[in-house]
Amino acid sequence: MEERKIRVAITHGDTNGIGYELVYRAFSAPEMLELCTPIVYGSPKIAAYYRKALNAEAAFSIIGSLDDVRDGRVNLLTCFDDEVKVEMGHPTPESAEAGRKALVRALADLQDGLFDGLVLAPFSSNREVLNQGLLVLMNETLRIAIATKSSSLKDVAAEVTKEHLLAQTSALHGMLKRDLRISNPRVALLSLNPGGDGPEEAEVIAPAISELVAGGKQVFGPYAADDFFGTGKYEAFDAVLAMYHDQGVAPFKALSAEENVCYVAGLPVPVAMTGIGPSYEQVGKGTADENSLRHAIYSVIDAARNRANYDAPLVNPLPKLYHEKRDESEKVRFSIPKKRENREPAAEKADGQQPHTEPEKKA
Amino acid sequence: MEERKIRVAITHGDTNGIGYELVYRAFSAPEMLELCTPIVYGSPKIAAYYRKALNAEAAFSIIGSLDDVRDGRVNLLTCFDDEVKVEMGHPTPESAEAGRKALVRALADLQDGLFDGLVLAPFSSNREVLNQGLLVLMNETLRIAIATKSSSLKDVAAEVTKEHLLAQTSALHGMLKRDLRISNPRVALLSLNPGGDGPEEAEVIAPAISELVAGGKQVFGPYAADDFFGTGKYEAFDAVLAMYHDQGVAPFKALSAEENVCYVAGLPVPVAMTGIGPSYEQVGKGTADENSLRHAIYSVIDAARNRANYDAPLVNPLPKLYHEKRDESEKVRFSIPKKRENREPAAEKADGQQPHTEPEKKA
Repeated sequence: MEERKIRVAITHGDTNGIGYELVYRAFSAPEMLELCTPIVYGSPKIAAYYRKALNAEAAFSIIGSLDDVRDGRVNLLTCFDDEVKVEMGHPTPESAEAGRKALVRALADLQDGLFDGLVLAPFSSNREVLNQGLLVLMNETLRIAIATKSSSLKDVAAEVTKEHLLAQTSALHGMLKRDLRISNPRVALLSLNPGGDGPEEAEVIAPAISELVAGGKQVFGPYAADDFFGTGKYEAFDAVLAMYHDQGVAPFKALSAEENVCYVAGLPVPVAMTGIGPSYEQVGKGTADENSLRHAIYSVIDAARNRANYDAPLVNPLPKLYHEKRDESEKVRFSIPKKRENREPAAEKADGQQPHTEPEKKA
Repeated sequence: MEERKIRVAITHGDTNGIGYELVYRAFSAPEMLELCTPIVYGSPKIAAYYRKALNAEAAFSIIGSLDDVRDGRVNLLTCFDDEVKVEMGHPTPESAEAGRKALVRALADLQDGLFDGLVLAPFSSNREVLNQGLLVLMNETLRIAIATKSSSLKDVAAEVTKEHLLAQTSALHGMLKRDLRISNPRVALLSLNPGGDGPEEAEVIAPAISELVAGGKQVFGPYAADDFFGTGKYEAFDAVLAMYHDQGVAPFKALSAEENVCYVAGLPVPVAMTGIGPSYEQVGKGTADENSLRHAIYSVIDAARNRANYDAPLVNPLPKLYHEKRDESEKVRFSIPKKRENREPAAEKADGQQPHTEPEKKA
């Protein structure tokens, strides 16, 4: 990890949407290539079309295999070489299929660990094709994860089981610790029913919280959503687990006008989607904000670095230097300095006095 | 209506909650008695307890019957004369029962038309005992009505039928026209499912909207809640019908920190509840904000006046002065000046030139 730049795969999204425009504009600033080495999962023909249409300054280097990835340039991995008709701003079955192909290829490579982070350009079927991991909406104000995947409100309650909540809360908790380096995160669970005192709260959510607390995690709730968002309770937590989409996403968007990133927790490498959709009405007009893509890229770069630093001591554990009443992973992690590359020889530090400094909260 | 002040009944709420404190403080300003004649539905003994405990300046005039109501004073109607132990700030079965008794009495008198408006002081069972009408949360930013009453999320979908939505949207539309005097209100319906393109949207909500539009109402949707609240779409409407509690109330509270009133539409007289709950932790401390009660009182006073003005021409219709392509009620209503008491003789105005001035939007 120290030897080379962080490699970020970027799928091109719906090819009639805003994807290529965002990529060209995001990488028009050469500083971006100092932060990471991008690998666009896409099509040289479509990229060429957009480059011409947009008069883009950035140029892509076409590669046929990940072996040819080089730092300091935008690598474009040819995911398919079919002719695809580009109709800027008009979603078609062809453009959706092109978006799907690049994503499927990227997900296969993700499982094989061929890059350090993955960013998905806008495509309405991103979540459907990805179909795994826990969605976490993040910005400066809030982090809200959505516990269920039901596209139908009437199916939500059946999906809210104790086992499911244990798994989702653990995924969120793990993401906060490992990807964001919040040492002892505080997580709030919302209630399923309004008011927060229905049967599901008593029989499912509260027992799940008790079990997580017994396991040493700081988990709180269940909180009634109206009061939670209306009285600023959310400010006391590092993240919130909402029970279903509208319960979390509507207040999230209502509370925060700024940029947001849709992070996907619990996958082999950090994955993020842009906070905006394919924005068909803006394609080719130069008005779309490329910062939504930049923010997604930053979030996976940060998370990839954090994971590497978090995992390093576990791969090659040092002797424990002191003990505290936390779970095992905390003990091991706090026994070494934060950054592996800056580490002084372990022997010199083994005085038991090393302070436990809370990693800076990313928000 | 012109002959006497508007009579506003006020239930005392949970008697260990903030109710009496709010009433005493709200009416410590004598100007309040110029706006309306209050009738507190309560208990002389409990009122006396709070008056002493709070060192209250306002005094209540105890009456045994509504025949004894007088303007210019706070009338306290004895709803029961039992001994009720007051434990300020501690909800008990006794205090809840006292709250319930006053409310039941007020609802009986409401059906008999014995006052012009009703305000409910905080009591956690207000909605349960009332059990009718359409809840509309209102403040300067938003008006959001909640289409279903389910206290359980899993029952919401079954409650969302076309007939139910037609009835609820019509109740909301009628309230906007009659109680708020918005001449041609624009109403938005949210979707039940996230994304807004599920089966219930196509089979239930969209057909209900079409039918309402065919009936001449400006009704729009269904809108996905996240986008609706996240992109400020709500600003284009006079009111929003959310499908269930958390979908509407959580974004409402997230978007608007200011005072709010819980209005109840579709009842024989205007009814409102305070935006705050019993606030047990504040009882007796002088810290609760009496403005929440004042705002509820103002809202029923305004609505009672608006209803009287709206209904007046229907009771004793004038000849139509001009025609326009609206529904019948509009035509009749626009044919007379807005305020009955300021009206000049109809004959002098019958020149066909009287402009149609849109009643000022209350928000």
